[in-house]
Amino acid sequence: MAQRLHYGPAMTGLNFPDQVLLDKLAALLGPQGFITDRDLIMPWLTDWRERYHGESIALLAPGTAGQVASIVQLAAEARVALVPQGGNTGTVAGATPPKDGSALLLSLRRMNRIRSISADDNAVTAEAGVILSDLHDAAAAIGRRFPLSLAAKGSATIGGLVSTNAGGTQVLRFGPMRALVLGIEAVLPDGSLLEGLATLRKDNRGYDLRQLLTGAEGTLGIVTAAALRLVPAVASRAVAWAGLATPQDALTLLRQLEERTGEAVESFELVPANALSLVLDKIPGARAPLEQACPWNVLIEAVDAQGSADPVAALEQALSTAIDQGIVLDATIAASEAQAAALWALRESISEAEKIDGPSLKHDISVPVAEMPAFLDRERQRLEARFPGSRIIAFGHLGDGNIHFNLLPPADADRTAWIDRHGAAASAMVHDLVVAASGSLSAEHGIGQAKLAEFERLTDPVRLNALRSIKRALDPLGIMNPGKLVPLASGDKAQ
Amino acid sequence: MAQRLHYGPAMTGLNFPDQVLLDKLAALLGPQGFITDRDLIMPWLTDWRERYHGESIALLAPGTAGQVASIVQLAAEARVALVPQGGNTGTVAGATPPKDGSALLLSLRRMNRIRSISADDNAVTAEAGVILSDLHDAAAAIGRRFPLSLAAKGSATIGGLVSTNAGGTQVLRFGPMRALVLGIEAVLPDGSLLEGLATLRKDNRGYDLRQLLTGAEGTLGIVTAAALRLVPAVASRAVAWAGLATPQDALTLLRQLEERTGEAVESFELVPANALSLVLDKIPGARAPLEQACPWNVLIEAVDAQGSADPVAALEQALSTAIDQGIVLDATIAASEAQAAALWALRESISEAEKIDGPSLKHDISVPVAEMPAFLDRERQRLEARFPGSRIIAFGHLGDGNIHFNLLPPADADRTAWIDRHGAAASAMVHDLVVAASGSLSAEHGIGQAKLAEFERLTDPVRLNALRSIKRALDPLGIMNPGKLVPLASGDKAQ
Repeated sequence: MAQRLHYGPAMTGLNFPDQVLLDKLAALLGPQGFITDRDLIMPWLTDWRERYHGESIALLAPGTAGQVASIVQLAAEARVALVPQGGNTGTVAGATPPKDGSALLLSLRRMNRIRSISADDNAVTAEAGVILSDLHDAAAAIGRRFPLSLAAKGSATIGGLVSTNAGGTQVLRFGPMRALVLGIEAVLPDGSLLEGLATLRKDNRGYDLRQLLTGAEGTLGIVTAAALRLVPAVASRAVAWAGLATPQDALTLLRQLEERTGEAVESFELVPANALSLVLDKIPGARAPLEQACPWNVLIEAVDAQGSADPVAALEQALSTAIDQGIVLDATIAASEAQAAALWALRESISEAEKIDGPSLKHDISVPVAEMPAFLDRERQRLEARFPGSRIIAFGHLGDGNIHFNLLPPADADRTAWIDRHGAAASAMVHDLVVAASGSLSAEHGIGQAKLAEFERLTDPVRLNALRSIKRALDPLGIMNPGKLVPLASGDKAQ
Repeated sequence: MAQRLHYGPAMTGLNFPDQVLLDKLAALLGPQGFITDRDLIMPWLTDWRERYHGESIALLAPGTAGQVASIVQLAAEARVALVPQGGNTGTVAGATPPKDGSALLLSLRRMNRIRSISADDNAVTAEAGVILSDLHDAAAAIGRRFPLSLAAKGSATIGGLVSTNAGGTQVLRFGPMRALVLGIEAVLPDGSLLEGLATLRKDNRGYDLRQLLTGAEGTLGIVTAAALRLVPAVASRAVAWAGLATPQDALTLLRQLEERTGEAVESFELVPANALSLVLDKIPGARAPLEQACPWNVLIEAVDAQGSADPVAALEQALSTAIDQGIVLDATIAASEAQAAALWALRESISEAEKIDGPSLKHDISVPVAEMPAFLDRERQRLEARFPGSRIIAFGHLGDGNIHFNLLPPADADRTAWIDRHGAAASAMVHDLVVAASGSLSAEHGIGQAKLAEFERLTDPVRLNALRSIKRALDPLGIMNPGKLVPLASGDKAQ
């Protein structure tokens, strides 16, 4: 008889996987798809930031959407929870199973076929386990590109990127994942297969389930494949690094660039002096992009898909005007693809450098774009005043109003001990300031389990009730990635 | 005692509005907001295409979101249905109340304030009743534009455009309404006010209720205001009219233009010879754009938001190359804003000319873009063969794979009688062909009541079940615009 359990904000009525279920799954999936070897399971039980550790008695690795449907049907019959997982590169532990071993880990990584790709149709249909950089390559091979990229592109999978509504460095121009999804194939919590992979540009039939599943973190179903927009390949690109005195100057520069070059600016990433120092210090081979360190920096990428204008010349002219106006202190434009890659590596190594440096408090916040410069100035001072010796490292997607607003413990402190003591209060303060600025405590990373309590604390009950209603309607048994994203009402515990 | 009723695919348990409810509403809304004068109500009881006629004992016209919330609370207590309505320009009778007078018509037109608009933030917050052309004007006044437009812009309202996920002539570049919505304020079916008007570019907190409400046709709540994206004003635009031999040539031309001018092409509208003739025949002052009539035409708008390139020169060059290649037969570029407006008027008058001409069968279909030319050739022939003497008028948004595929009865037939006799079979045939091509029977107009039966007939039960679950979860009483969009299970009738 399976044991009853209650975890997190309790989802009741679930069972631990018993031998009957495991035998059925083993028979369904075969040795390739039903893995119980601990060495093979272990790497997937911890989140990317190594703060959450879960358990699962088996790792399910289906090869087809039909197998996923069968798994969900079996899990629903047995009332056992499933935790879908892609590349396990998320930052909020949304794909880490619960500690008690009550859930089964379901990896989509074996489903890694590109089912179709068309230049005429500017679309690709990729299975959930396709790795982002492989999708980039497939698009490039037909003269197109998939305009979403992020530092984890070598591991992140399409299913995870859809389920977390991933952002990255091109949101400014192309929007997040939800703007690129044309269709979704998914297994719903009752084990039925939702076949919605058409590459239609316009389809106005009823509630948009694609949009509901995008960003649902596997709590409403398991995305098994997605049809995605492609855009024309870039004819040429210009990558520049500019030093500035303030974030407000950076935003002024962005608006000037937009006026001069339209939507040619695809990326506009803010990097403060302390983040750049950290990268130069911790990442082997990293070199300072400008002769003198500036208080703030931006990495700019402008592209030309038009074959006529020259993005390098346009960027050069715009930056030299900005230097004359005193908006930019110094700037360099990459003279080769290798230099461009080196500038990008500085930006994309910040998280890695932070990780090497040691524990810090991460926040992924957004406020209205125009208000971000003032927010950064004002709230950094407040935080550093309230927690003396602490330092804010604020970097990221200024053009989207989305900054990774991370807090480093004082230099002389034992970081882990400091975070244990002050972390919750410091994060709560950041989130309170964000809410006061009509912002979001999760701009692009999602909620997962890491932000669940703060999400519940700071979200309008009207909105929470609506989320709970949708969750219960589509997953009445509560088997889909429980304990993630949707804070259940405390009343649920007593049910 | 209020009378029980069952209508359409029955939503049970609803009552007719009784005097107690009406008195409460009159007290709440005052004479400006509680209208019983038949002359004032009548114009809003019939849909734009004049095929559906409804009844409502009163027209509710709240002035604030708070009043809307109070109306919904009273309606929920009394179990009386509400039918929200904006400019009443929809084509699927989604805002027409049921015939039996069981529902109350709720007009959002009095809520017509622009609450805020910001060039720095590239965003506007507009109440549901703001008319689209007024929003265009407000954006222009601060050097921005709202990039969604359609023929009904002088009447269509923001609330309706959000609730129907409107498309129009700029979807090619900017996507439909759901791509432009940053935030939504709405009254949910329990009368609670969902306050979600922040102008955040990135917000990854839970299921995206904005996306769920967009296109929900008022069946999940009443949109009272929306925060919307603005984009830079256009520095200059080029409008051209080109004549071609086939839709495939038109698509080839579009891909060439995209390669040469990137995303400068914002509109690419297909117009067949028979649609142009109809406009020239029926619309006073309309003049032929080219010397010789061509089998097919496209209206092209290319814009330059960059201040550097000249869209007229770019379009001129691209079109003259296409003429040399034999892709384009003849072309003209507007030499003035007046000429540009005249070309646009030809396109935007097609629906009006059809209306003057008399009844026809309308279809708003999409298939994958690359497949549309072959679909048009093949299925026109099949339809005209199956219904001898009938003619297809196929026009619209070729670049989106969305064509208005309308069928005219034979010239010598009594149109109304012909449609009564053959209309259902002809529309079913069109929709079957669309489904066979993995397309949508509603690309941009929505489902409303006009397409409800066909939507139910041709939709995967997995998808229908999910829609029904969501509807029941958020609107358990079924008071929000019943009989629209969501086909209820036949089993519901027996409940």
